Amino acid sequence: MAYTAEIIGVGTEILLGNICNTDAQDVSQALSQLGINVYFHTVVGDNLQRLRQAVDIARSRADIIITTGGLGPTYDDLTKQTLAEAFGKRLVFHEEEAERIRSYFKERLNNMEMTENNLQQAWLPEGCVVFVNTCGTAPGCAFEADGKHVIMLPGPPRECRAMLQHSAIPYLAALSDSQLYTHNIHVFGMGESSVEARLRDLMREMTNPTLAPYAKEGEVLLRLTAKARSKEEAEAMMAPALEKVRAVLGDVIYGVDTDTLENTVFQLLKEQGKTLAAAESCTGGLLSKRLTDLPGSSAVFLGGVVSYATRSKVSVLGVDEAVLKNNPVASRPVAEAMARRARELFGADFGIGITGVAGPDPDENGTEPGTVYIALDTGDQTFCREPLHFTDRARVRSFAASTGLDMLRRYLTGRPV
Amino acid sequence: MAYTAEIIGVGTEILLGNICNTDAQDVSQALSQLGINVYFHTVVGDNLQRLRQAVDIARSRADIIITTGGLGPTYDDLTKQTLAEAFGKRLVFHEEEAERIRSYFKERLNNMEMTENNLQQAWLPEGCVVFVNTCGTAPGCAFEADGKHVIMLPGPPRECRAMLQHSAIPYLAALSDSQLYTHNIHVFGMGESSVEARLRDLMREMTNPTLAPYAKEGEVLLRLTAKARSKEEAEAMMAPALEKVRAVLGDVIYGVDTDTLENTVFQLLKEQGKTLAAAESCTGGLLSKRLTDLPGSSAVFLGGVVSYATRSKVSVLGVDEAVLKNNPVASRPVAEAMARRARELFGADFGIGITGVAGPDPDENGTEPGTVYIALDTGDQTFCREPLHFTDRARVRSFAASTGLDMLRRYLTGRPV
Repeated sequence: MAYTAEIIGVGTEILLGNICNTDAQDVSQALSQLGINVYFHTVVGDNLQRLRQAVDIARSRADIIITTGGLGPTYDDLTKQTLAEAFGKRLVFHEEEAERIRSYFKERLNNMEMTENNLQQAWLPEGCVVFVNTCGTAPGCAFEADGKHVIMLPGPPRECRAMLQHSAIPYLAALSDSQLYTHNIHVFGMGESSVEARLRDLMREMTNPTLAPYAKEGEVLLRLTAKARSKEEAEAMMAPALEKVRAVLGDVIYGVDTDTLENTVFQLLKEQGKTLAAAESCTGGLLSKRLTDLPGSSAVFLGGVVSYATRSKVSVLGVDEAVLKNNPVASRPVAEAMARRARELFGADFGIGITGVAGPDPDENGTEPGTVYIALDTGDQTFCREPLHFTDRARVRSFAASTGLDMLRRYLTGRPV
Repeated sequence: MAYTAEIIGVGTEILLGNICNTDAQDVSQALSQLGINVYFHTVVGDNLQRLRQAVDIARSRADIIITTGGLGPTYDDLTKQTLAEAFGKRLVFHEEEAERIRSYFKERLNNMEMTENNLQQAWLPEGCVVFVNTCGTAPGCAFEADGKHVIMLPGPPRECRAMLQHSAIPYLAALSDSQLYTHNIHVFGMGESSVEARLRDLMREMTNPTLAPYAKEGEVLLRLTAKARSKEEAEAMMAPALEKVRAVLGDVIYGVDTDTLENTVFQLLKEQGKTLAAAESCTGGLLSKRLTDLPGSSAVFLGGVVSYATRSKVSVLGVDEAVLKNNPVASRPVAEAMARRARELFGADFGIGITGVAGPDPDENGTEPGTVYIALDTGDQTFCREPLHFTDRARVRSFAASTGLDMLRRYLTGRPV
């Protein structure tokens, strides 16, 4: 039997629009992986009557009720009382949890004074399974009553996510005999509509596993999902589908179950013992920033020059003055010279150079926004691309940085750049 | 009378956790500004029965029902049919909207072929007010029936936000005689708990306007909100409160109703006709990236060097070799030399230098993660700060870049750096 679940977010700050209900997304993703159907999300404020009303509606239409938020120490944290009352449970003081809260203040908060109301968090429904909070003070819990499963998770997204992984998912996995298994196929360099057109027939004829495309930041993510009793069974079901997708799309797939384009490039450089430097104009440090987001990136990324002012391309980066005299700033020769100079200046194996107009206005030469040249210099060869013309500044910058990374990815894997 | 509203998000992709229900946040913020109370959010999939159930529950407890999503051209877009049926309205073909959809394909989508199902979007409830979609094809609408107001908005966040601003807010504002007016007070350089402790008494005694703090990315945002019949009345109510907050917090307030710290610095530099260059090590281009996110930043930001590899601090940036020999890479003298060299290299008025260990591991000298030095060089003077030790890589980087920007903000406004 497939379980159905309803997620109730508790918190007036969500209803005021101060924060977005990201907990619901996190919990939904986990439930979807577990093969549990979610038919409704509800959000309700810190109000006893309305929370009780939401709980009563949820229990009438779902097998599993998962709440997020309202577990804290203040008077407007009402989730435990309300759920316990709705299911006829008493709240019981858990000395072990009280001790954990006391020591959290002592050790993690540097002996910060603990006010007494913090111990309210140690009152939990009788007979529940306690979920330890690894990054905060409020414990969560789960209990079964009247044929329903109730799970309570804390509201702060970091705490909610951690408790979901450590406690709620294992609890829920034990309820179900089949689960969803997923492969994420990452695509750069082909638009969503082209990907969809090429895979349309395949997607239509598939039922288990299923294949679905999602557009994200100039990339396409294809999610291949199988429902099966074990990981092995799921893998056996997914392997032929994965082969078919690879055959259709070819080398625009930059990774399966990988992280990001920058991480893919980082791993390739590390494996091959190679280094990179960048010279960025219109992306203004975005490519460097994305690579240095990754811990350990100093092993492969030596640095870069953000030559934002035109004259700094000569004075700092050392591009030949004649190149800039004879060409618009946003041009292939300038991008290529920037890539070469970045490589030489930093003594790296590869250099990436990006120059163009991010917009929203044309530059002083009248070059239109979205005109961007991206070059890769390998010492022996220089490649240059001029990608699609977008008009949105953020998209132009993001797509240009991604293109530079993808060119290097293609070079490092022996594909045409 | 204060109206109450319920927001119903329609879309299976939200229940699967593929996307977050950001529309609910956008709509909630707008309603909160209008003084309309939101007691529930509901999310339901693309399913006729369950959507009808959600609508029936919402009409039993709210005066205004706002739906987002499910207005598109495909068979699983059910919102209009369901809402019309629930309130006994027929769907009527709107020739004017059909024409708009046809011309959208012609002009905005470059003559892309329009499939017939797109015209389904022109069927709207009889007697409704049509909301034109300025960034997509699906129109929204509003109607009144049985003493309830029903508003339907498209799901894609960009389309939803635009229609909210252009159509839904004016429609709702006409229903209500008092509205909420807000000032956002931006604070950097004082933690949320300190801000709260200093303002606690003030916040407690205030009822209209109200004052509430929100932590965001190393900053604190204080929201001052008044409920009033006009903007003038609201301003008169908020002015004394704003003065009190300024008196208590002083110069850690970097702006009121401003955008971001980088935008504040950008505007100050522009006003004073000054320029900036950066030398970034552990922030890896983040400060440059944040400044160049802003259109027009080339007027004040000349560029930077991402001297990520230690030797590039000498070879590219030109820091004196002796400084690096006699000091750890993460040290005050290195940060100061980097700031000076950035200024000199780019010929800027100001240089910012950032060096440190972002983590998660100590550097090769055993310097702990979170040790970061941030220097500002003005030509005449050099300032250096070593901010709080965080341990999370992203927070270390973000806080370090913000500190650099804040030091310059303080200098440019004549405050102690």
